[in-house]
Amino acid sequence: MIRAAAIRMEDALKYLYKVQKEVYLLQSIEGLLEWDEGTNMPKAGYGSRSEHQRIIQGLIQEKLVNRKLEAAISALKSGKLSKRDSIVLEAVEKQVRRIKYIPVSFVRQLSKRQVIAKSAWKEAYKKNDFSIALPDFSRMVELKRQQAGYFSPESMPYDSLLNEYEEGMNSERLSGMFRQLKEELSVLLGEIRKSQAYSKESRMDVKMSRKEQKAIIIDFLRRMGISSEKVKLGASSHPFTSVISGSDIRITASFKEPLESFFSALHEAGHALYAMNLPQNYNYTVIYNAASYGLDEGMALIWENMIGRSKEFWKSYYIAFRKNTKGVQNWKEFYESINRVRSSPVRISADEVTYCLHVILRFELERDLVNGTLKPAHVRDAWNQKMGEYLGIIPKNDREGLLQDDHWASGEFGYFPTYALGMVYSAQVFRKIAEDIPSAGEDISAQEFSKVIEWLTAKIYSKGNSGTAESIVRSATGLPANPNIFIEYLRKKYLEIYR
Amino acid sequence: MIRAAAIRMEDALKYLYKVQKEVYLLQSIEGLLEWDEGTNMPKAGYGSRSEHQRIIQGLIQEKLVNRKLEAAISALKSGKLSKRDSIVLEAVEKQVRRIKYIPVSFVRQLSKRQVIAKSAWKEAYKKNDFSIALPDFSRMVELKRQQAGYFSPESMPYDSLLNEYEEGMNSERLSGMFRQLKEELSVLLGEIRKSQAYSKESRMDVKMSRKEQKAIIIDFLRRMGISSEKVKLGASSHPFTSVISGSDIRITASFKEPLESFFSALHEAGHALYAMNLPQNYNYTVIYNAASYGLDEGMALIWENMIGRSKEFWKSYYIAFRKNTKGVQNWKEFYESINRVRSSPVRISADEVTYCLHVILRFELERDLVNGTLKPAHVRDAWNQKMGEYLGIIPKNDREGLLQDDHWASGEFGYFPTYALGMVYSAQVFRKIAEDIPSAGEDISAQEFSKVIEWLTAKIYSKGNSGTAESIVRSATGLPANPNIFIEYLRKKYLEIYR
Repeated sequence: MIRAAAIRMEDALKYLYKVQKEVYLLQSIEGLLEWDEGTNMPKAGYGSRSEHQRIIQGLIQEKLVNRKLEAAISALKSGKLSKRDSIVLEAVEKQVRRIKYIPVSFVRQLSKRQVIAKSAWKEAYKKNDFSIALPDFSRMVELKRQQAGYFSPESMPYDSLLNEYEEGMNSERLSGMFRQLKEELSVLLGEIRKSQAYSKESRMDVKMSRKEQKAIIIDFLRRMGISSEKVKLGASSHPFTSVISGSDIRITASFKEPLESFFSALHEAGHALYAMNLPQNYNYTVIYNAASYGLDEGMALIWENMIGRSKEFWKSYYIAFRKNTKGVQNWKEFYESINRVRSSPVRISADEVTYCLHVILRFELERDLVNGTLKPAHVRDAWNQKMGEYLGIIPKNDREGLLQDDHWASGEFGYFPTYALGMVYSAQVFRKIAEDIPSAGEDISAQEFSKVIEWLTAKIYSKGNSGTAESIVRSATGLPANPNIFIEYLRKKYLEIYR
Repeated sequence: MIRAAAIRMEDALKYLYKVQKEVYLLQSIEGLLEWDEGTNMPKAGYGSRSEHQRIIQGLIQEKLVNRKLEAAISALKSGKLSKRDSIVLEAVEKQVRRIKYIPVSFVRQLSKRQVIAKSAWKEAYKKNDFSIALPDFSRMVELKRQQAGYFSPESMPYDSLLNEYEEGMNSERLSGMFRQLKEELSVLLGEIRKSQAYSKESRMDVKMSRKEQKAIIIDFLRRMGISSEKVKLGASSHPFTSVISGSDIRITASFKEPLESFFSALHEAGHALYAMNLPQNYNYTVIYNAASYGLDEGMALIWENMIGRSKEFWKSYYIAFRKNTKGVQNWKEFYESINRVRSSPVRISADEVTYCLHVILRFELERDLVNGTLKPAHVRDAWNQKMGEYLGIIPKNDREGLLQDDHWASGEFGYFPTYALGMVYSAQVFRKIAEDIPSAGEDISAQEFSKVIEWLTAKIYSKGNSGTAESIVRSATGLPANPNIFIEYLRKKYLEIYR
């Protein structure tokens, strides 16, 4: 009897890993479909591309929701497992739970509605009028509330959606953290605005051909230990990263405005580095992934902001931009210019100080929308009012206002807060790096990143998705997510620039 | 009772089309994987890419070989079907038969062996020594003989492999056609060699930047009615086409030698045009495909050779190349230079007259290898001897000899003859076009292709895979595959150049 049970366990385990590999590969193909869509697919390919996505998603569903896997999981739960196996088992259970209770008919309805709502949003953007998008947007809010109920009927609807992007986080904690951030950022922004330096206009102008932009980006990627062996650099109007496998990662740059291209390439390269250094012993399982959207964002921001917008870095790296830059006298003016603080109505062009205010505004609105306390018909007014409150700006029109991002069109509620969490994680992790590696500042000046990468690999990258983002950050830094460190970082950096 | 049977038929039909759509989409994803591999994939992506391919192939197998589809097919066979439905049913049956009798373990072994044999072939090429590839090559021949037995145990092994590329063709007919071709081509080559013009060396030199090459190719694609809406032009060292769907086709050019790039782009564009004009009412079925490798090749050669290397075309189009061309006085010298006949040891750089001799040599050898009358250990000697006989050339080494193409490394026996069949089909179809469209010559001079495209769409493209290539060619031209027309075409064209 004991022997028979042991064999069954072994089979169950084998089956679990077989399914994990299949699901990993199907998701990897999905990643390629997305990268291709953003970089190479001809326009008329949309029809067949949405069919590709539908069939792959259907296959993933089939692989994860069936009696055989269910039986294997329950057999394994009653047995004794190694630590590795129990980590995988737990993650698979979550993966299954996430889709198991959602009726196939709902999934179909949602994906159809997403196409419609996205196109209505586009149309509204074109005509600069949110009311065109409103009917489909309202329906999308309702559908997402319904989906939240399938995910976890016992929690607040918004929390259950948030959990898709940032496991273990909830809106109560976020609301607390964000309230604090909002207050501190307002204070800092006020101080900056009162400074003398704030009134100075920047006349910096950087001009580079596409070829020069590419050369400088590739040079930097090499310094990060990223070669074309594993990472392909493509072009797309909105930069993004697709992870096909640990040895095949695609990043893009827009190659338009040179500094924008450069910083976004650093950002995407940060995602790539994380994906390249996931725990190899968990390859082809759900653990072989970034821990959360927020931590993935944080790992990108370490390269884009903590390193890429730092004084230490530009002190020496300015030389690479000097001949293409006009309107500044030296690296310090260059550094001050790339770190200019200005209230702007647009999130993606916001600086480090104001960025989180844009995100918090979105979080508050989407939380209330999904929880049912804000009506879709009132979201425009609420947006404009909050913009005035947090940033002192009233959007001139809807394009400059709530139509600027299209996350909501396809119902991606719960995504926005991960951008601010990424800021918080990046500052917190980077401060610990600076403590643990005394030469960090000099290393950055010398564009010598091996120790930093080693640290990140040991403490973050190699943990994969084996725990929540916050538990990984806590192990790495000794603290839970802590917005104070981010505020301290900003105050030190920006009150030096804006004296 | 009758009503119950009717319902069952309806369900069976619905299921048949559902599976067809799924298989079409999975194959379409396979096409994308290949295109990506050839154009964008970083080197280290090979590992995960072969896993992607394995999982997609496995899924296709699952979709096609199962009891439910079997039951649906047998229900449909006993009922009354529309013409469209019976065409699809017949094609599906063939599709299923092709994989049904091949054990999964064999498929796995074959694909593993292909990787090994390809890498041995590469190594042999590098070291310029076929004997390095011989052991794995011999094993590959054995495996393909075994596979042929699974496909159709009653026919000659080679015929059963050939049928994968050119349905309905057999080696007896091919041997007959090719014997005739070989003789006639030898005679023609002899006449050309004796002509005075043959001794004249060409000093033509065409220089173009990558940008200029791209511009001229895109200009020509537009004239063919091919826009970037549906067709993406990428770059790869060996040009190829991947069909993702009728609205998403990927072609590549090498952008190295300008004329080579141009002609190969015309060739790939010919494939694209076929794929763009398949029968829409058969979309998402196996009928929505080119009829065979040979006919697909023929449709590409119409653009590359029949139009692209014609006098009518260059008379007017030379102007597009003139400023980049040195060493010729006028369009006629340009035309003569691009149609230069020379025996060369290398297939891919062969001219229209000698090209088929390269192919016939490969056909004869692979036929005998697969049928067991030629031992792999003797294939090098046989190759070199035939090269002497057919082309008057003894390869200096293996790289210039049988290692130049790698089709055999992965066991693609039966593929080569489709290149020569393509030549035969292209000349035969093009003569009929010239008969049916009196203005064809002038149209080509004016780069005005709409009538030609209309003809090709009506007679070839829109037939899809609804019959064998030869039956489609017969309907279009009134004749079965007929090498005489190709010979007549060559004699007329080349004896004018080589007087």
